[in-house]
Amino acid sequence: METDIPLEPVLELVGVFVGAMSGALAAVRKQFDVFGILVLGWAAGLGGGILRDVLIGAVPPVGISNWRFIATAVAGATVIYFFHPRLERARRFIEVLDAGALALFTVVGTIKGLEYGTTLTAAVVVGVMTGVGGGVLRDLLSGEVPVVLHHRQLYAIPALLGATATAILWWQDAASTVTVVAVVIAVFALRVGALRFKLKAPGPWRGTVR
Amino acid sequence: METDIPLEPVLELVGVFVGAMSGALAAVRKQFDVFGILVLGWAAGLGGGILRDVLIGAVPPVGISNWRFIATAVAGATVIYFFHPRLERARRFIEVLDAGALALFTVVGTIKGLEYGTTLTAAVVVGVMTGVGGGVLRDLLSGEVPVVLHHRQLYAIPALLGATATAILWWQDAASTVTVVAVVIAVFALRVGALRFKLKAPGPWRGTVR
Amino acid sequence: METDIPLEPVLELVGVFVGAMSGALAAVRKQFDVFGILVLGWAAGLGGGILRDVLIGAVPPVGISNWRFIATAVAGATVIYFFHPRLERARRFIEVLDAGALALFTVVGTIKGLEYGTTLTAAVVVGVMTGVGGGVLRDLLSGEVPVVLHHRQLYAIPALLGATATAILWWQDAASTVTVVAVVIAVFALRVGALRFKLKAPGPWRGTVR
Repeated sequence: METDIPLEPVLELVGVFVGAMSGALAAVRKQFDVFGILVLGWAAGLGGGILRDVLIGAVPPVGISNWRFIATAVAGATVIYFFHPRLERARRFIEVLDAGALALFTVVGTIKGLEYGTTLTAAVVVGVMTGVGGGVLRDLLSGEVPVVLHHRQLYAIPALLGATATAILWWQDAASTVTVVAVVIAVFALRVGALRFKLKAPGPWRGTVR
Repeated sequence: METDIPLEPVLELVGVFVGAMSGALAAVRKQFDVFGILVLGWAAGLGGGILRDVLIGAVPPVGISNWRFIATAVAGATVIYFFHPRLERARRFIEVLDAGALALFTVVGTIKGLEYGTTLTAAVVVGVMTGVGGGVLRDLLSGEVPVVLHHRQLYAIPALLGATATAILWWQDAASTVTVVAVVIAVFALRVGALRFKLKAPGPWRGTVR
Repeated sequence: METDIPLEPVLELVGVFVGAMSGALAAVRKQFDVFGILVLGWAAGLGGGILRDVLIGAVPPVGISNWRFIATAVAGATVIYFFHPRLERARRFIEVLDAGALALFTVVGTIKGLEYGTTLTAAVVVGVMTGVGGGVLRDLLSGEVPVVLHHRQLYAIPALLGATATAILWWQDAASTVTVVAVVIAVFALRVGALRFKLKAPGPWRGTVR
């Protein structure tokens, strides 16, 4: 199947920009220097797509070869570099943008995997990785345990559902602009709803060990 | 040379299952949420093979594309999710299973490298990585220094010897079912012997610096 | 364009040796065992090139397949293993050697990216990664926040300038032995000058958040 989905490059750049802001903010909080701020912006904004591209064999990854993406990540990091104290107050707004980036990256990443001829399973894995991988790299590079693994928010689970839905649509030859956009909106709504109503992912069953 | 080694897919799945249990257990101990438990199970059970496949160009790696492997890792993580307090007591038994997984993964990983036409050196590196890489990813993702690098147990060294022996057999055209199984058994025996007799790998020469 | 640059394999091996020493020294300080010391030597000496090769599709990477490189990294780690107390005093000298390795790795890495047909942007990214990536892997594997991201030394910035200059020379068809060696020398001089005069990279703008 050929996809006729307009991947909305503008929206994707917004996602990269927001991701880069989250990375640069983590770097500023850790008192990283200007190179560290750029690297964390790049890793958070583009790292998920880089992991995806390496795993499906799409090398060099767009996250290192496409100057528009890199320039957007640098722009996001630069905004944080100069305006971070003021942006702390816009946190709510940034969380909503980030929910949009999560939804878009996950669905776009799943489709890219499918277009490269991976199995449905691999497409779901790389889709989720596109959505959450940048944040994982940001956390590892700044010396933190990846927050997506333990924060108990509904963050990765909407991505997992969205990637699975996208793969099933593709498998059933039902992936069209309308259905795919519907999945993006559903993931976004689920994530924003989780923020609004503080929905939680469960922790380990029956308490902890030792 | 064509290999006629029956790779014993059942044994490999047992290895993935045991590896996933170790990852999920680390996640439970750190109070990760359900997504973190799944990711650590996947990384610990399949991460070594994923690193190997990326390095030899076998993309997408089986650790993301083969649903049987993924389902096995999810099953291992699920068992830990529900039964972790009880499984603490089976630690000895799990260590022996893990020794089997180490031996099998190392030898199978070395052979896969050789089959992809790598140099003998590269095959040894990816063989060891298949054996110990999952544990390294598990530790990095849970915020720990990789235990295999500092615990002073004989864990990686049996793998290094086994990968080297496998590569030499291949180079000498002596890799057959019998010789390769003998290497797997030797690595397993060395690891179990090290557990039983508490054999140690040496630390730095003449104390520490500073 | 075909490059006629003599890549000075001897110098490259010196760079691997020095990088491996820095990795092994980090491992000794953390009281890693003999396997950990070898792995950190290998990661620090060859990790940058391995990241580059995976990203440009040059698999298997020379850092796992070329026995000369591996043997050199093992030799660097072995020297540290036996002589680390004495080598603490040679720190100044090792820093200068490391500046040479940074300059050479960055320029060689950028050219390798260009030879593989990447975009100029990608070549700059993989060039910088070849220069500083080994140190990042060394720090992540030893449980440290990558020092290059926060130490505020001029370390990565000379590499970034050198990779950019190399890519521009290539783009303008002006990459020759003379111009490329001039870039290597400029990066080396900038790094040594930064060491000598304690030049600093800036931290975050207007203090920190919270």
